Amino acid sequence: MDTATTTCSAVDLAALLSSSSNSTSSLAAATFLCSQISNISNKLSDTTFAVDNTYLLFSAYLVFAMQLGFAMLCAGSVRAKNTMNIMLTNVLDAAAGAISYYLFGFAFAFGTPSNGFIGRHHSFFALSSYPERSGSDFSFFLYQWAFAIAAAGITSGSIAERTQFVAYLIYSTFLTGFVYPTVSHWFWSSDGWASASRSDNNLLFGSGAIDFAGSGVVHMVGGIAGLWGALVEGPRIGRFDRSGRSVALRGHSASLVVLGTFLLWFGWYGFNPGSFLTILKGYDKSRPYYGQWSAVGRTAVTTTLSGCTAALTTLFSKRLLAGHWNVIDVCNGLLGGFAAITSGCAVVEPWAAIVCGFVASWVLIGFNLLAKKLKYDDPLEAAQLHGGCGAWGLIFTGLFASKQYVNEVYSGDRPYGLLMGGGGKLLAAQIVQIIVIVGWVTVTMGPLFYGLHKMNLLRISAEDEMAGMDMTRHGGFAYAYNDEDDVSTKPWGHMAGRVEPTSRSSTPTPTLTV
Amino acid sequence: MDTATTTCSAVDLAALLSSSSNSTSSLAAATFLCSQISNISNKLSDTTFAVDNTYLLFSAYLVFAMQLGFAMLCAGSVRAKNTMNIMLTNVLDAAAGAISYYLFGFAFAFGTPSNGFIGRHHSFFALSSYPERSGSDFSFFLYQWAFAIAAAGITSGSIAERTQFVAYLIYSTFLTGFVYPTVSHWFWSSDGWASASRSDNNLLFGSGAIDFAGSGVVHMVGGIAGLWGALVEGPRIGRFDRSGRSVALRGHSASLVVLGTFLLWFGWYGFNPGSFLTILKGYDKSRPYYGQWSAVGRTAVTTTLSGCTAALTTLFSKRLLAGHWNVIDVCNGLLGGFAAITSGCAVVEPWAAIVCGFVASWVLIGFNLLAKKLKYDDPLEAAQLHGGCGAWGLIFTGLFASKQYVNEVYSGDRPYGLLMGGGGKLLAAQIVQIIVIVGWVTVTMGPLFYGLHKMNLLRISAEDEMAGMDMTRHGGFAYAYNDEDDVSTKPWGHMAGRVEPTSRSSTPTPTLTV
Amino acid sequence: MDTATTTCSAVDLAALLSSSSNSTSSLAAATFLCSQISNISNKLSDTTFAVDNTYLLFSAYLVFAMQLGFAMLCAGSVRAKNTMNIMLTNVLDAAAGAISYYLFGFAFAFGTPSNGFIGRHHSFFALSSYPERSGSDFSFFLYQWAFAIAAAGITSGSIAERTQFVAYLIYSTFLTGFVYPTVSHWFWSSDGWASASRSDNNLLFGSGAIDFAGSGVVHMVGGIAGLWGALVEGPRIGRFDRSGRSVALRGHSASLVVLGTFLLWFGWYGFNPGSFLTILKGYDKSRPYYGQWSAVGRTAVTTTLSGCTAALTTLFSKRLLAGHWNVIDVCNGLLGGFAAITSGCAVVEPWAAIVCGFVASWVLIGFNLLAKKLKYDDPLEAAQLHGGCGAWGLIFTGLFASKQYVNEVYSGDRPYGLLMGGGGKLLAAQIVQIIVIVGWVTVTMGPLFYGLHKMNLLRISAEDEMAGMDMTRHGGFAYAYNDEDDVSTKPWGHMAGRVEPTSRSSTPTPTLTV
Repeated sequence: MDTATTTCSAVDLAALLSSSSNSTSSLAAATFLCSQISNISNKLSDTTFAVDNTYLLFSAYLVFAMQLGFAMLCAGSVRAKNTMNIMLTNVLDAAAGAISYYLFGFAFAFGTPSNGFIGRHHSFFALSSYPERSGSDFSFFLYQWAFAIAAAGITSGSIAERTQFVAYLIYSTFLTGFVYPTVSHWFWSSDGWASASRSDNNLLFGSGAIDFAGSGVVHMVGGIAGLWGALVEGPRIGRFDRSGRSVALRGHSASLVVLGTFLLWFGWYGFNPGSFLTILKGYDKSRPYYGQWSAVGRTAVTTTLSGCTAALTTLFSKRLLAGHWNVIDVCNGLLGGFAAITSGCAVVEPWAAIVCGFVASWVLIGFNLLAKKLKYDDPLEAAQLHGGCGAWGLIFTGLFASKQYVNEVYSGDRPYGLLMGGGGKLLAAQIVQIIVIVGWVTVTMGPLFYGLHKMNLLRISAEDEMAGMDMTRHGGFAYAYNDEDDVSTKPWGHMAGRVEPTSRSSTPTPTLTV
Repeated sequence: MDTATTTCSAVDLAALLSSSSNSTSSLAAATFLCSQISNISNKLSDTTFAVDNTYLLFSAYLVFAMQLGFAMLCAGSVRAKNTMNIMLTNVLDAAAGAISYYLFGFAFAFGTPSNGFIGRHHSFFALSSYPERSGSDFSFFLYQWAFAIAAAGITSGSIAERTQFVAYLIYSTFLTGFVYPTVSHWFWSSDGWASASRSDNNLLFGSGAIDFAGSGVVHMVGGIAGLWGALVEGPRIGRFDRSGRSVALRGHSASLVVLGTFLLWFGWYGFNPGSFLTILKGYDKSRPYYGQWSAVGRTAVTTTLSGCTAALTTLFSKRLLAGHWNVIDVCNGLLGGFAAITSGCAVVEPWAAIVCGFVASWVLIGFNLLAKKLKYDDPLEAAQLHGGCGAWGLIFTGLFASKQYVNEVYSGDRPYGLLMGGGGKLLAAQIVQIIVIVGWVTVTMGPLFYGLHKMNLLRISAEDEMAGMDMTRHGGFAYAYNDEDDVSTKPWGHMAGRVEPTSRSSTPTPTLTV
Repeated sequence: MDTATTTCSAVDLAALLSSSSNSTSSLAAATFLCSQISNISNKLSDTTFAVDNTYLLFSAYLVFAMQLGFAMLCAGSVRAKNTMNIMLTNVLDAAAGAISYYLFGFAFAFGTPSNGFIGRHHSFFALSSYPERSGSDFSFFLYQWAFAIAAAGITSGSIAERTQFVAYLIYSTFLTGFVYPTVSHWFWSSDGWASASRSDNNLLFGSGAIDFAGSGVVHMVGGIAGLWGALVEGPRIGRFDRSGRSVALRGHSASLVVLGTFLLWFGWYGFNPGSFLTILKGYDKSRPYYGQWSAVGRTAVTTTLSGCTAALTTLFSKRLLAGHWNVIDVCNGLLGGFAAITSGCAVVEPWAAIVCGFVASWVLIGFNLLAKKLKYDDPLEAAQLHGGCGAWGLIFTGLFASKQYVNEVYSGDRPYGLLMGGGGKLLAAQIVQIIVIVGWVTVTMGPLFYGLHKMNLLRISAEDEMAGMDMTRHGGFAYAYNDEDDVSTKPWGHMAGRVEPTSRSSTPTPTLTV
């Protein structure tokens, strides 16, 4: 507490005021009062920074927890023999993403001024002289990093169980360091050509696309990238039998899937409400009790309702379609509802969130049927879920965004949802966003995956795929429940007693064969 | 930061003051000063809302994380063959609970004005025109929802491994949407007949029951509901052998149990300290350094000490009783200590929390012995733990609530703990709460479970129970560690290569047979 | 919101001002203005307490989550047969630690005034009359408790899979209640002889050691304690074969290892940035937009970058050294990077954090090679990781601490990093810290472990070690995936249907044989 603000001597001030027709004395009184007010103002300013940074940092930590959620969801959804592989990719998303986003990704995304296409201000590369000349702070960098790594995590699900690790390293760095930052620049930077928060008000269709927390920027980008990866690779061995029928390759642990899903849900409270970036902001000067804190809470509620509706819809529809109550499908439905509401969470009414989740569930079911028909194999349903439900989320916002909330969250009087009477401009901007994201990710990630494929760097060998990557590339199986009992009887049992190389010279082929 | 508060020109103000015997000029000076002060006041008001909402939202996120804790605790405590089933019920608690609590549960609990028995203000149903006409905000709704789903989660443990899924859907909706909201209305709403925070000070026994974070409202409600469910269903097959001896049906994963326990512990820091709802509130105008933030911290400490004491007590007593150091028992003891302190956490001294936890451990051990004697089978010990320790917690508060803390947390001068010299009125109110909760839950949930039983909707068939519900109702076993190795040898192995239905027409009986 | 600050009647004030040459009236005006300012000041003071306590409490919850991370990391890193044992030790770290830290540990660490060696103010024992006479609050106690239990958790990893449970109880209480609090007193208390935040500015080498969040105080203490424990016990059976070659005894679940690692990462955001204890503090009165909130964010960024760099470095170097991409090694590398940056996180530039992590990875690799050479067996690599990387972290701070940040975080003009032009004084203090911690932990924990060894209380029997402690001491195996299938065929299968003792009298030897 600054003591500067706490001392106010009534006797001294009275002496000054009582002789205030004397101009020296009145100046002293005024100086004293203004100094008090100025101290208070500074302290209030400090308080605002502290509150907003606390809010943003803890939101960032929650978003980071989603990476753990992804890791557990992915691990549980693959077969046991590929668990080490998929978990390593999730750890690396975060680790490699931190370095590439620090070095250039953040500058591409938010370096300002920019040319509208990509940011490039020098002070943002490697955070040199950041945050001094910007309106944001380290908490903003951390928050945006946590978002960037989510996109690559989505993609890793689509190409799981059959991708060379080196291919993973290459696409992940490219996606996190360039493809994703560019998209986030377009839609979230104050310079972005399609951003709803452009500083110059030269908005696309007078509106800009509203993708509040990233149904498009994060989920579609990750999902479409995964789509191309999975298309280029083709399905896993055994996923469709000789007669072309779909054969479920079930993940090895439903417990990990549920654990991952709940952690993603937990983290989504950082992802969506956290995207306000600040919480201490009044919306109406005449009503000091109404402000961003209420919008933040409402966003948490719309997020919850959309996901929950999608989960319930999936539960009952899958019961009818498949004949049993399936927790894995319910988890995916839930996540589809979250991916969809992520665009409009801050600008729609709670009841609209229920509409959003209901449709999201059917979008996912529909895309999954289509995928089966087209023999598209995506172990995590990532393209269907994040791509499909993400796209629906953008359209949903164009239909249901409320006038009041759009005007509060984005300043000024501007277009809102078509079905709410706000005209078609916002919807048009949303559709442009869908087209542009599909196009951009296709022209960047498509050739990358194809090139890796042509160089034989993309897919593992059939032998490796049958044996599992953990055994052949990652030093052994992820689990050993029965210890020595199994040394002699299980094919992987000998690992429990594996003799380590005693020195580097005895290591088998230390050259980097991937 | 509002710039309105930051400009104070000493020269201008001095000019006004120096001629302040002139009434126009003095009015200008006064208007200026008052406007500054008013701006500052508004900003301070905004700050208070932002800080309190941040506090409550992140507390709500922690309480939500308890649902993940429940899911993992339950999953680990059942046999592997019922893992998918129990996890699905946990996901659905949250999802179905969100919809029912949004539509009517919240209105029943906190709609105001009410008739004392149940809330019913129209603006709370489906959050229509909420939060405009209330003193609370969306963060409060989210927080209360996270509490509501905890109760149903407790109950699911008692009836695990033998209950039809459709019965689960019915009781869960009824409990979250009606039974629990009614109880929370009585004890927590400002209109509740037994609430310690009634707005009109017409308190039960001049005191009201102090159930700060819900030893009774949440834990006893969930536990007593589970008791009736488990009593109506009877024990699992094999739980007691032909000669009536107790046979432990061990859960399938101690790791999941410990994971779930720690997550519950983590979430309890949102449950107990978060129940203050706000943190920015001074308790003593003359001491600006003393306020709710200190009480919040103290509540976190009492919570910790009670759980830890119960864990240690359980460790040593079970070592003496059973001959080994048992981590599962220690986890249950810990949770019993938490369930007990939840009522009084905010109003007792840290040393009293140690007494609370010590007794809670023995309460749990005692009820478990009684359950074994009566051949009562509760796979999670939920009725014993949440019901038994919850009831002890209410009594504990009536004995140990401190005068100072009661008067700070609940305004005014009122009865406190019997052993602290505060008379028997609070204890009487606490005992009334126990009786009323047991009675209310019995007359609502008892008939419901009995009716489901009579309609053959409650218990699964003996064949399903032997095979496990995952296989028969949920599409397959939760785990597949050894992949294709096991296809031919394990009864569930064929699932790993199960051919999916290619179209809906080939699905076996798409009618809803539960 | 205090209404006291909100009413300012311009008309009334004007009347007072206009007649302010009248001294009564001017006193009234001044009294009114001062009372307003005083109210505002009090409210600002309350706000500061609320914000800082919110920040510290949620940071403490994150640090607590690390205990869950340790539990999962340890569980996954041991063989399945010892899972119950290691998880019980992790639960007990927290539980026993809470009681011992409450009773005396906290008083030893922060009781003030002290004699420089150890704190001992009566008001801190059992928190009697705390927090009344101190500058800290319950949130500070909770935060410090969460730190204290981390140290014991580290040690438990070193001696896993071969230590009697009773030995664990003894060393854990001694470490958490005495050894660790003493060290934290030296380096973190305002009375500590080597503290950089001594209140009397009588600093070691005019500098004091900068161990911001505890590379030395927490990680080295835990690691060196583990070193002595593991040395006294010797390696696990089978860890080195007859010819002396190292045989990997792989942990039973890589999924748990990754889960634990991510949880530790998540919790580290409470550990490092949280160590500021407050967030609402401006650094420069003339720039109200610059303060501790920025340093807190920067600390989260340096922490992230160091860990991520270490993870990537480990990935590629282990690929070269061992021939495969190993997620377990990457996890350990990551944690080594975190342990190293923990000392300097608040006072170094982000680029320096990358240097820190890069070297930390090699420090860990080097110590692991050394351990293998010396036939030192540490199942979690805890001594190498927390001891080795922790020591490197202290040196790193002495080399790279930035002048500006040292002066902001620790008040005044003082020595900083050698390579940054700040001279060798800080580095000297850091080296003294390393020596003193190694010495203190050696003279306290070494004899303790040796004494336990001599009394046959330290290591379990060879039979128990082969069978696994879960079977012999903890009531059974941690997992039962295949339920009744295995009753007849597996050595531990009968546990699934174990008949419980019906009464205490039939319990085998209820005496406390450990």
